[in-house]
Amino acid sequence: MSDKIFRVNMSDLTTGIEEVPADWAGHGGRGLTSTIVAAEVEPTCHPLGEKNKLVIAPGLLSGTAAANSGRISCGAKSPLTGTIKEANSGGKTAQMLAKIGCKALIIEGLPDGETWYNIHLGPESITINEETELIGKGNFAVVEAVQQRYDNKVGIITIGPAGEMKMTAANISHKDPDGKLRSSGRGGLGAVMGSKRVKFISIDATDAKVEIADPEAFKAANRAFTKALVDHPVSQALGQYGTNVLVNIINEAGALPTRNFQSGQFDGHDKISGETMYDTIVERGGKPKHNCHTGCVIQCSQIYNDADKKYKTSGFEYESIWAMGADCCVDNLDHIAEADHLMDDLGIDTIETSVAFGVAMEAGVLEFGDGAGMVRILKDEIGKGTPLGRIIGGGAGSVGRAFGVTRVPTVKNQAIPAYDPRAVKGIGITYATSTQGADHTMGYTVATNILNVGGSADPLSKEGQVELSRNLQIATAAIDSTGMCLFIAFAALDDETCLPALIDMINARFGISLTADDVTNLGKTILKTERAFNEAAGFTNKHDRLPEFFSSEPIPPHNAIWDFSDEEIDTFWNF
Amino acid sequence: MSDKIFRVNMSDLTTGIEEVPADWAGHGGRGLTSTIVAAEVEPTCHPLGEKNKLVIAPGLLSGTAAANSGRISCGAKSPLTGTIKEANSGGKTAQMLAKIGCKALIIEGLPDGETWYNIHLGPESITINEETELIGKGNFAVVEAVQQRYDNKVGIITIGPAGEMKMTAANISHKDPDGKLRSSGRGGLGAVMGSKRVKFISIDATDAKVEIADPEAFKAANRAFTKALVDHPVSQALGQYGTNVLVNIINEAGALPTRNFQSGQFDGHDKISGETMYDTIVERGGKPKHNCHTGCVIQCSQIYNDADKKYKTSGFEYESIWAMGADCCVDNLDHIAEADHLMDDLGIDTIETSVAFGVAMEAGVLEFGDGAGMVRILKDEIGKGTPLGRIIGGGAGSVGRAFGVTRVPTVKNQAIPAYDPRAVKGIGITYATSTQGADHTMGYTVATNILNVGGSADPLSKEGQVELSRNLQIATAAIDSTGMCLFIAFAALDDETCLPALIDMINARFGISLTADDVTNLGKTILKTERAFNEAAGFTNKHDRLPEFFSSEPIPPHNAIWDFSDEEIDTFWNF
Repeated sequence: MSDKIFRVNMSDLTTGIEEVPADWAGHGGRGLTSTIVAAEVEPTCHPLGEKNKLVIAPGLLSGTAAANSGRISCGAKSPLTGTIKEANSGGKTAQMLAKIGCKALIIEGLPDGETWYNIHLGPESITINEETELIGKGNFAVVEAVQQRYDNKVGIITIGPAGEMKMTAANISHKDPDGKLRSSGRGGLGAVMGSKRVKFISIDATDAKVEIADPEAFKAANRAFTKALVDHPVSQALGQYGTNVLVNIINEAGALPTRNFQSGQFDGHDKISGETMYDTIVERGGKPKHNCHTGCVIQCSQIYNDADKKYKTSGFEYESIWAMGADCCVDNLDHIAEADHLMDDLGIDTIETSVAFGVAMEAGVLEFGDGAGMVRILKDEIGKGTPLGRIIGGGAGSVGRAFGVTRVPTVKNQAIPAYDPRAVKGIGITYATSTQGADHTMGYTVATNILNVGGSADPLSKEGQVELSRNLQIATAAIDSTGMCLFIAFAALDDETCLPALIDMINARFGISLTADDVTNLGKTILKTERAFNEAAGFTNKHDRLPEFFSSEPIPPHNAIWDFSDEEIDTFWNF
Repeated sequence: MSDKIFRVNMSDLTTGIEEVPADWAGHGGRGLTSTIVAAEVEPTCHPLGEKNKLVIAPGLLSGTAAANSGRISCGAKSPLTGTIKEANSGGKTAQMLAKIGCKALIIEGLPDGETWYNIHLGPESITINEETELIGKGNFAVVEAVQQRYDNKVGIITIGPAGEMKMTAANISHKDPDGKLRSSGRGGLGAVMGSKRVKFISIDATDAKVEIADPEAFKAANRAFTKALVDHPVSQALGQYGTNVLVNIINEAGALPTRNFQSGQFDGHDKISGETMYDTIVERGGKPKHNCHTGCVIQCSQIYNDADKKYKTSGFEYESIWAMGADCCVDNLDHIAEADHLMDDLGIDTIETSVAFGVAMEAGVLEFGDGAGMVRILKDEIGKGTPLGRIIGGGAGSVGRAFGVTRVPTVKNQAIPAYDPRAVKGIGITYATSTQGADHTMGYTVATNILNVGGSADPLSKEGQVELSRNLQIATAAIDSTGMCLFIAFAALDDETCLPALIDMINARFGISLTADDVTNLGKTILKTERAFNEAAGFTNKHDRLPEFFSSEPIPPHNAIWDFSDEEIDTFWNF
């Protein structure tokens, strides 16, 4: 199929399939969602009002055989941060959207009244249907029911009860190859989909496929690219232990935020580590190695079974395990797995919600370490939309405001993830300056600061961190546009064959001739587009700051503080 | 006593009495609180953290015999808006602070641990005491107990449970001449006082008095000033019916926000009007005319008794009655009076909290019109700090975020008060551009738009509104610095003897020779100081906007919308 823009107007329930404007043609994934949001959304609009738009776009290489190219981008003005937002995910939907020729799906407007809808997409077709059966249902039930409706053939993009209730930690989930879920987690985009009263989107890509301009060149480039990925030691570690390999590494570095960011090391780290998780998975007949989308050669996902050897969760990530574990002092992997499963079903971001639990623990709502309490609150409060559920479902900042807590680890109201910025200073620059609030994936300096990928940079020194974060944020914005998983970055940073092969694939796909400079410029353009949107929404450099407790409270064991001056941080934007 | 700065550091529990810096000498009230906050508070700091300071200052004329000069200003960085904030109030504390020579009290730092304190002030003396007995108690109990402790002699500044719980709608209350309460209502300053763990401040001014440089000139000016005040017809109407005289007037104008700002007229207006209130007060043996501070000659306050002729509330204001009444569709004055009493006791702003109830009603938390439900929630939820109580106690914006409501009448997260900006366009400019979030008292264009004071300006036309709001905001900033009640503005606008008499009093008090231009320049300087603080805190012109529903939803009966362009609003700052 040739690429088109699929547009759905929920105000008047009309649809359209449009030619791709020339300005948008070179974009995919995050580059495209951000370009469209910047072009069509009023920056000061209410994120849950009729003027916001939800944009969903596969990457430039999604739907092809390119390794690891199955990431989907969701974008909008975020109800959590008020900034522009892109949240990407694995699963099957990027590939299916690309195959039906949907370069981007734009959902705009708001319906009158209380009716809910679903949207069904096929090649050259969009249908809006009333939905009643699945309203109020969890994501797993949605996937099961929609698979039955469509004979197990469709891709599914869905929100859970959290999104229906417009909680600002709500995510958007995507069916994965196992019929489980992967999530566009951050920034509350599930609430935007909920505000538009769209419960799910199904995609029928039967017999549809992506056309490749130069199939032979594409295959050759993909072979080189795949080899670079599978040869890299970090790829291999991710394949064995999953992202959770990081618990012991980051704990050793003294940068594992513990007890709501009061320490950098967690006594119970061993009980929640990737190594322990691996042993548990093997013992219980789960799968330690597993992919989130067809074509992934790293396979950092896993299937985690409960003590009865029954499926409990998959895609059991370091970030989630850290947040529920160290940050909330819960050292019981089964409690964490249960909570992870519930969050996936409710459709709520594990990072935002778990960091919110850490703040709630500090406020005395429940005790640090109370994993069972966390599970209970997820079921009985967040799931039912009680006032407490809505406070926690509003994220870490919401909990801080409700209970008057001042140690609230957020930037632009988005929870800081699993690396303490006092002990890994590069990632602090990323948190502060990212166009999207605190987000490690926007410029993952941990690669260089801790894993010595792409060189090395002392995590405790300020030296070179702004430049490191800048280079990685630019590269990431470009990678996020290709449909590639961010984990290709390890190979891209260390193996000089990797990035040229990626560019060769893009050129072979479209019959164009991008250079490495073009890709860097693409990254810069995306960041500047996002920044301009934020400025028009009222953000200034004053929002590119970490909460003050990072500067006043030294974090053990290094007793480091956040010591960048405002002027040093602001040099980030000198490009 | 000569004027000094009283400083209390709650981090190390030290105190100091300092000379007044030359830059601060010409300031009082709001001019002084804003000048001190701008000089000493880091604009990006956490409002409930150790870097914020609570500044309390009487006006330039407070403590003298000048009519209506007993207003007290509280200032800080607001936890509700994030902007600089001044909230002023009647009561006795301005006069007593002035008499003991306290030009401003600055409370800074935060204590370690869980201990609560009170602060006792006298001429040249400050004592910090541990407080246990009154923690968790309502404001009325605090006033009663503290009066007993000090033989009924002291002024009292206090926070209720809402302030202790750091709810961002919490206010600071001041004992009035009857031993009841007047409040510095807006912007959550009670939470700042609560964050510093100060339950109350007592002031012993026995035998202390303000010195007047030229007593004869002062007396003569005060006579002329008093005559101008009592002769003005609006002063007289305020004396008879209280501020609540406005219910029928604003309803008639189609500008009485009703059902969470869905209409400009309320069917039940007659049941909650000033006229009905007057009849009820007389019938039940209350007082229709009453002052909030010694020396007030307008006396817009009243004592409202319940059906058993027992005291229920005083200072029963239009804004409170509108917010609980029309905005929540409650047409029962006794329910409103009960809720008003509870809010005073809990120490929570009636405007913010009641508008929050209106948003909660729209969210379905309770039904529109459910006055008894409002009373129940105040007692059982806000009073007890339950999650629902904390959501509503966080103000209208908090309720909107928790429940995903988009019709949330706030500017800079502060609730819009009792005049719909679509039907009274001048006040919309004030809401949008005020340095403190939506606040009618910052530039009360209703005087000219509706009451034809100081000329007239069609409330439904954009013509002249920016200039009107600008002139009034400048004048108000100056008036708020004198200790004068804002209601002197009616006489000041219409009677050419009023303002010169006021200036003569200031000159006679200090032995100086201010001119009318000096006063205007003072107002401009205050606004610019406040604006600069906000800009340094990250605010831009993008925050000088009304919520988008005002532009998209016409309000009956005029079916007017908010139609100022961004550029038109931004011309406000051209001075």
